Amino acid sequence: MGKPLPSAASAPNPLVVNVRARHCHLTPEAVEQLFGRGRQLTVHKWLYQEGQFAAEETVTLVGPRSRVISNLRILGPCRGLNQVELAYTDAIALGFEVPLRLSGAVHGAPGCRLMGPAGVFEMAEGVIRARRHAHLHPKDAEFYGVKQGDFMKLRLGGECGLVLERILCRVDPAFKLEVHIDTDEGNACNLQPDTACELFK
Amino acid sequence: MGKPLPSAASAPNPLVVNVRARHCHLTPEAVEQLFGRGRQLTVHKWLYQEGQFAAEETVTLVGPRSRVISNLRILGPCRGLNQVELAYTDAIALGFEVPLRLSGAVHGAPGCRLMGPAGVFEMAEGVIRARRHAHLHPKDAEFYGVKQGDFMKLRLGGECGLVLERILCRVDPAFKLEVHIDTDEGNACNLQPDTACELFK
Repeated sequence: MGKPLPSAASAPNPLVVNVRARHCHLTPEAVEQLFGRGRQLTVHKWLYQEGQFAAEETVTLVGPRSRVISNLRILGPCRGLNQVELAYTDAIALGFEVPLRLSGAVHGAPGCRLMGPAGVFEMAEGVIRARRHAHLHPKDAEFYGVKQGDFMKLRLGGECGLVLERILCRVDPAFKLEVHIDTDEGNACNLQPDTACELFK
Repeated sequence: MGKPLPSAASAPNPLVVNVRARHCHLTPEAVEQLFGRGRQLTVHKWLYQEGQFAAEETVTLVGPRSRVISNLRILGPCRGLNQVELAYTDAIALGFEVPLRLSGAVHGAPGCRLMGPAGVFEMAEGVIRARRHAHLHPKDAEFYGVKQGDFMKLRLGGECGLVLERILCRVDPAFKLEVHIDTDEGNACNLQPDTACELFK
């Protein structure tokens, strides 16, 4: 009709917001210790980022006060370090003091005990709350005018809507545009499949 | 120094933000059924709003899938209706589908079973997530330029800061300025005693 399209219409990719419930990433050695020699993770469900999956395997986490979370999902593939990501509500229920960290920055974060069907793995450190972040393809970063390490904001609508600030940008040609938030954040705004969302600088 | 003071300096009252963990309000009849004939609530801790208190008494909540929350705090004094306020994280853990409601608007909300030392109380309806809200004295409402039923926003600072939208205003001469949020909201932003907060239209 000759009218300009709204600017969002030129975004290279749709915005996807996913809640990451508590989970862990494990090394191949930890997987063998928990599930048995030679055991590898099996795919339960593929995630939105290419090659990432929720494994069929889960573990039991034992916290500092012997409180337990059962069925803690492992996300694959295996990584070079072990890390448990909890929401603060989870951490408080377990009795943890958990730092806010970038994924992978586990140094000095508290440890825990993980139990699997074949054994126990004492994780010396690595229980964190993952800092909220956005995965961006370089084309997404260009569209939003941000670069690796910048912060963005995410508005989530509805009757208990909110704006999440300080969403860290991670830019990589392998990434698809996706914001990861945790269950506290998702439940604070009652995130549903049809919740309106807007990512901005 | 002849400079104008920032506008916040003229606010009539300090802004207080409190997390309300899951709790219930009960009628005198429910208290008697749960704790015994003639029993009344006893004060554990006075709350910020005049006359409101956390009771020493707690109950056990049994959800629809026989899952349980122990030590659910009762807030006093007794009211004319029974109501359980849960965060969505609590509700999901219990297996409830819980509506977002104004406190007191319990019609059609799911029920639950409450257990106390002297008996069981079957609550036919009234498990809700309380809509986030602000208590304002009329002087606060005048300062912020809002009236009963308006919505405001609350910015909470820090490394996982956010802006909560759609905070309902409740105005009453008996109120002291206070925003109530739940544990999902408080944990989403890691609310601490020194977290910067700002209430605005």
